[in-house]
Amino acid sequence: MQTVGILGLGLIGGSIGLALKGQSTHTGSPAYRVIGYDSDPSRRQQAQHRRAVDLASEQMIEVAQQADVLILATPVLAVRQVLADIAPHVRPTTLITDTASTKAAVLRWARELLLPGARFIGGHPMAGGTGSLEDAHSNLFLGATYCLVPSLAPDADDEPDKDALITMERLIVALGAQPLRIDAETHDRCVAAISHLPFLTAAALVETVATSDDVEMMRQLASSGFRDASRLAAGDPAMYESIALTNREAITLWLDAYLARLQAVRQLLQAAQGEDEALLTLFKAARQHRQKMLE
Amino acid sequence: MQTVGILGLGLIGGSIGLALKGQSTHTGSPAYRVIGYDSDPSRRQQAQHRRAVDLASEQMIEVAQQADVLILATPVLAVRQVLADIAPHVRPTTLITDTASTKAAVLRWARELLLPGARFIGGHPMAGGTGSLEDAHSNLFLGATYCLVPSLAPDADDEPDKDALITMERLIVALGAQPLRIDAETHDRCVAAISHLPFLTAAALVETVATSDDVEMMRQLASSGFRDASRLAAGDPAMYESIALTNREAITLWLDAYLARLQAVRQLLQAAQGEDEALLTLFKAARQHRQKMLE
Repeated sequence: MQTVGILGLGLIGGSIGLALKGQSTHTGSPAYRVIGYDSDPSRRQQAQHRRAVDLASEQMIEVAQQADVLILATPVLAVRQVLADIAPHVRPTTLITDTASTKAAVLRWARELLLPGARFIGGHPMAGGTGSLEDAHSNLFLGATYCLVPSLAPDADDEPDKDALITMERLIVALGAQPLRIDAETHDRCVAAISHLPFLTAAALVETVATSDDVEMMRQLASSGFRDASRLAAGDPAMYESIALTNREAITLWLDAYLARLQAVRQLLQAAQGEDEALLTLFKAARQHRQKMLE
Repeated sequence: MQTVGILGLGLIGGSIGLALKGQSTHTGSPAYRVIGYDSDPSRRQQAQHRRAVDLASEQMIEVAQQADVLILATPVLAVRQVLADIAPHVRPTTLITDTASTKAAVLRWARELLLPGARFIGGHPMAGGTGSLEDAHSNLFLGATYCLVPSLAPDADDEPDKDALITMERLIVALGAQPLRIDAETHDRCVAAISHLPFLTAAALVETVATSDDVEMMRQLASSGFRDASRLAAGDPAMYESIALTNREAITLWLDAYLARLQAVRQLLQAAQGEDEALLTLFKAARQHRQKMLE
């Protein structure tokens, strides 16, 4: 029986614990022993009360020492410090992973801070969003894609740690998710496009509109369209700040592409006469492309 | 008993008919006689079959002649032609209204094309979205704001047609909606902000992302965040083209404000160090402003 250690008992860490313990119940015999740590004592208490962990330790190092698989489920900017803190204490066989939203920075920190030969594979479950331990549940990852990120670049010539990948894939399947192997650069570029850019465009939309003199009237007129278009702007500001800081380059590239596209839309809008149909063609393409991406 | 004529039996026209006929059933005695016209014979047949209308006429003029309240429920660009067609046939007492997404253009057409003394009040139910007669239902407007637009500008000195406003408000309440009096310029400026701009930003987002070489990988990673952020891009392209053509000025002003805001976000992103907190402050403001707008 493997011991899984979870550092950070928030929405993600708590849900991983609940899913792994739920998994144990299904099969009759426990598949994983789960131990956890959080710097907040009330979270440790709550995690144990909800049985997200078999044991919530008061010592991060103790969890790091005991774990066969150690999951860093903290915000991305905290991952660096945790890696530094645990580095001298983990056993050489312990497999270390994380759940943060950007991966290249994390892989660089792991390479820089862990001892030579340490086993690290980046991870990113495409589920969660905002929420805390109260919102954790065992089905959070059901059907979701879970990125497994063993290398920094697509052409990396690191020897892959096949046992580690198999261990992680088994664990991800136990969560009900689908493992997807991807390198850190590709991951960061893709999530910048489908998640980080949409957050920024939503935040900019809200700030453009909500600071207007007409905001009281708009409140009466706004319906589901504005609600959906702006929903990402309700995300955790600190999480998105850390994402922006650790994925700045990819986000900037997409932001520039987006700005250029919007300028083109503006030109079409100025030129449109209802005869040339360029606007209509654009709107049709957007509808089709969206459908293809989400089907 | 008033006769309501509906020209255009799509999602909006059909739902108005169903709501008014449903209303009649509730009270025991019919409150409205509903007659309708659509250029598409199968829609006429379907509307009558679903009892959205008491009678679907093959003659638009016949409906215009018989109606006490005549509702133009066509796309905004068709409103102009319908106004021209019905102008010589409506009785001077008939109250004419429309349901189109932009109002200043419609009010100008009404002033230009209807006979002197004709009674016209613009209308815009803040519900509907995409869909056709199949999707029509009597609850479409339940709880929605329904704009009533008697004048072009806030400072218009037209004598308000109080009887017409009362008639319209009673009809809107019968639909289950809440009437909101507003002038056309304010309406168009506000819906440009909360509906037309978000459509353009969603369409530009899809076109930026979906034309990338990484689109296959993005498909596997995209989840509810991208789905919501891009949902408006799934709207009817022809409807949004007509909106763009009839509300170009207001949309352009908002688009420019949005572009400036995005450029500012880009600068903050470049400058952010994790110490100055300007990005964090922006993200917190966006979250708060959104909550205020939607509460």
